[in-house]
Amino acid sequence: MRGLMQDRPLDVAAVMRRVEQFGHKKIVTATAAGEVTATWREVVSRARLLAAALGDLGVPHQARVGAFGWNSQRYVELYLAVPSSGRVLHTLNHRLFADEITHIVNDAADDVLFVDRSLLPRVWPLVDGFGSVRRIVVMDDGATGEIPADPRIVDYEELLAGVGEPARPVTPDENEAACLCYTSGTTGNPKGVLYSHRSIVLHALLLLGADAFAISERDVVMPIVPMFHVNAWGLPYAAMLAGSDLVLPGPAMSPEALLERMARHRVTFSAGVPAIWRGIQPLLGEADVSSLRMVVSGGSALPDALSRAWQEATGIPLTSSWGMTETSPLVACGRLSSVHDDLDPDARRVKLGLPGPSLPLTELRIVDDDGNPVAHDGETPGELQVSGPTIASGYFGGDPGTDKFTEDGWLRTGDVATIDEYGYLRIVDRTKDLVKSGGEWISSVALENEIMAHPDVAEAAVIGVVDDKWGERPLACVVPVAGRTVDDQGIRRHLEGRVASWWIPERFWITDEIPKTATGKFSKVALRKLAAAQGMSAP
Amino acid sequence: MRGLMQDRPLDVAAVMRRVEQFGHKKIVTATAAGEVTATWREVVSRARLLAAALGDLGVPHQARVGAFGWNSQRYVELYLAVPSSGRVLHTLNHRLFADEITHIVNDAADDVLFVDRSLLPRVWPLVDGFGSVRRIVVMDDGATGEIPADPRIVDYEELLAGVGEPARPVTPDENEAACLCYTSGTTGNPKGVLYSHRSIVLHALLLLGADAFAISERDVVMPIVPMFHVNAWGLPYAAMLAGSDLVLPGPAMSPEALLERMARHRVTFSAGVPAIWRGIQPLLGEADVSSLRMVVSGGSALPDALSRAWQEATGIPLTSSWGMTETSPLVACGRLSSVHDDLDPDARRVKLGLPGPSLPLTELRIVDDDGNPVAHDGETPGELQVSGPTIASGYFGGDPGTDKFTEDGWLRTGDVATIDEYGYLRIVDRTKDLVKSGGEWISSVALENEIMAHPDVAEAAVIGVVDDKWGERPLACVVPVAGRTVDDQGIRRHLEGRVASWWIPERFWITDEIPKTATGKFSKVALRKLAAAQGMSAP
Repeated sequence: MRGLMQDRPLDVAAVMRRVEQFGHKKIVTATAAGEVTATWREVVSRARLLAAALGDLGVPHQARVGAFGWNSQRYVELYLAVPSSGRVLHTLNHRLFADEITHIVNDAADDVLFVDRSLLPRVWPLVDGFGSVRRIVVMDDGATGEIPADPRIVDYEELLAGVGEPARPVTPDENEAACLCYTSGTTGNPKGVLYSHRSIVLHALLLLGADAFAISERDVVMPIVPMFHVNAWGLPYAAMLAGSDLVLPGPAMSPEALLERMARHRVTFSAGVPAIWRGIQPLLGEADVSSLRMVVSGGSALPDALSRAWQEATGIPLTSSWGMTETSPLVACGRLSSVHDDLDPDARRVKLGLPGPSLPLTELRIVDDDGNPVAHDGETPGELQVSGPTIASGYFGGDPGTDKFTEDGWLRTGDVATIDEYGYLRIVDRTKDLVKSGGEWISSVALENEIMAHPDVAEAAVIGVVDDKWGERPLACVVPVAGRTVDDQGIRRHLEGRVASWWIPERFWITDEIPKTATGKFSKVALRKLAAAQGMSAP
Repeated sequence: MRGLMQDRPLDVAAVMRRVEQFGHKKIVTATAAGEVTATWREVVSRARLLAAALGDLGVPHQARVGAFGWNSQRYVELYLAVPSSGRVLHTLNHRLFADEITHIVNDAADDVLFVDRSLLPRVWPLVDGFGSVRRIVVMDDGATGEIPADPRIVDYEELLAGVGEPARPVTPDENEAACLCYTSGTTGNPKGVLYSHRSIVLHALLLLGADAFAISERDVVMPIVPMFHVNAWGLPYAAMLAGSDLVLPGPAMSPEALLERMARHRVTFSAGVPAIWRGIQPLLGEADVSSLRMVVSGGSALPDALSRAWQEATGIPLTSSWGMTETSPLVACGRLSSVHDDLDPDARRVKLGLPGPSLPLTELRIVDDDGNPVAHDGETPGELQVSGPTIASGYFGGDPGTDKFTEDGWLRTGDVATIDEYGYLRIVDRTKDLVKSGGEWISSVALENEIMAHPDVAEAAVIGVVDDKWGERPLACVVPVAGRTVDDQGIRRHLEGRVASWWIPERFWITDEIPKTATGKFSKVALRKLAAAQGMSAP
């Protein structure tokens, strides 16, 4: 017997109707030509034209519309127009290597591409390798490079200007595909995660929750995490449901530009990877960011030293979060529960610096090597597995990645984690990044954090290398703070008492830079190659 | 093309798994025998036994399980066990008239009934008129009345004690029925609203939103609104998703008992009808309720004078809300948007005292008599219609009420409202409660509020009565504050300048009590009968 409730899909068209209610609220975009401000009313109106333009371009139902862009108003228009008209928005990372980009565009069989003018020099040389792409729409962001004279190219604004009637949104089954984002491929081939309308809307609703990001109408949200990266962690859609203002940094990603914009627009909420917060932190005294209520760090572990520096400068520590492309992405974020009322400010910051309990609708379990659940005692590690309506069930495209899912349909994250009695998640390490020394596990993440707590260390990455006696030993790659020096001895002394003595590495590389992936994470793959070149092979 | 996301239903079983994560949090119930405290872990464990017991009782899949009870832990167990085991929880209002109760139980064809021992004297005399009811489970709340010796009666705790194995939850289609609640029947026959698992879970998620009730793990939630009344406005399910503590007043509904409990358990969030807040207000100086962060008033219009008295006594004004049995119920609640930053405290309180913009996923429109949309200018009234996945599409049982829905499936609320440019809803009146005088509408709600702003007036209700000259004129029924007196002249002087002069009634009834419906609202039906008995007929 069905309940007698209205059959209304959770879809992007409903999100678009929602944000019209906040038509007076604003989206600010930084462009090479200066800041552009629009109201949500204008953005929705343009999105309806864009939806019609996709019809004019002959983009079929459910075809993939690729996008290369910085965070901008036009990207928001794509977020609205593409899914609400029944197509699939494929967000693309222009920082990937050329052959990765080509592989992904072809694997997704993108029908048309939208490209920021400033990114055209990156994308255009690859276009002839994109088998399925018929047209390229250039979004002129004030960059001055030449636009090739090619019949496939059309200007975004000219496209919109040519539309007769705005499109009526399509009402899909809410389980239809809405957006596509490939994993960063640190653990194999990039694989396509295909979000449904339902998962997009549910995830955005979850971000409004008081114990999640608590996004509200009063917020001025500045997503520094790219809109091509898991939908900027869902923030644009959450801002639409809430009616928040959005501030979008465009290509102006220098710490100085980000901080200045944050201060000028009285930003209340921002989110990005630790490297962003590390870059801004030394400048915090130079701007008034007292409007900030929550600053979320995600994508990799948050070093407590960085959060402490933010707390000292702004009064608020950073808030950790955890998720993956496969999880929409937010699964858990740092928060203080009623059991933490007696903690002092330092302990509260440390608590916020770890992911908290999972969001509603999202379930976690940790299992041993045989797949049996292990205790939620905050100490016993196991592989983290995730279930819920915002979690992937498989992959789109050539690589089905079936080994990433359990028989009962849970996602195997590849992360090793503990969960405590209050449901607090703590990521110990990526499964393959644990260092097994003398039969015992060393957490490379924990060791990196302790090394980065050294006042003269800017960055540290740890990998395991083969060792005759212990099987494997940690090797630490360390970047000093600019203008400072560090040596092996000093770091070893610093680590004594902070970690078990047998965790302390024998070998350090003091270097100027740690190789990073296209998404800004430490590339352990590249580090292992460098180590191998010096005769230290990974196990 | 379907998105590749996990197929996980939004169902009560998922809510039950969710609250297990907060197993250490508490539910406190006031009973005649004193307070009972349990953890969520215990409640879920008992709910799993209860689910099995329903099987032992032979309750079929999707059969209705009726419940007569005060807000209590056992009622929470019913909220979990009944829907998660595939049955439908039918919440029943013991304050209805006997023939209404009998009609509703029979219309729903309840298979078994759960009844608080203290309510047995009310329910038992009616049982032989309940055609479908096979068994009566008595929930012993410490009341001392005799329990009839009847083979149909079984004790709740004995039932649980007799269970061998806890039940495994059923995984339903999320659109299956979960709960049933009849309308209060102020506008005709009571009609059954049949909530689905999906609507229950979505509504609970919406209550967690920062701009809705912002229910969080840190909250101590005290629903004073009955659990038989639209699922206590969804608060128990929201508390389960958030992991809040619950404080349940049981039958101890006196203002003194409510206030004492609120203070003792450091309640942070409470919700009830204006009559509850009016009862507690004079006592506010006698207890420390500084823990309160939000006090929600709903069910009828919130008089500003009452909210001001709360603001003066506690520092926080009351927050208005609007909804109906058909809307799960929350559609909108008072809140301050960024456009209200410059308002002074009085103006902010007035704003919070009106429903705000609709919740996400919930859409409003106002239409004229021909069904055409009217402007959202905050002035033009129209009939309020509502759409969304938490809004009814029809009724269960004998009365289909098809005239309550538009051709495109929106709910016709029967309320007349305005909506302003920021989406703020303002209820002008029930369609049938408007007074049409000389061709112009007088809002009985607005007039009541202005009369109740008089310091010596406790309650006021306005109806229209036939008038030879004007067609219709308002008649005001007024209850003075205890120990005070008011007269027609004084109220007329008070109204001058507050409302248009032609709104001011010629006739007042000064009385000790205004007749109320079973749900505590002014019964305009009963008032009209009283007026007719005195020769003043309703139009």
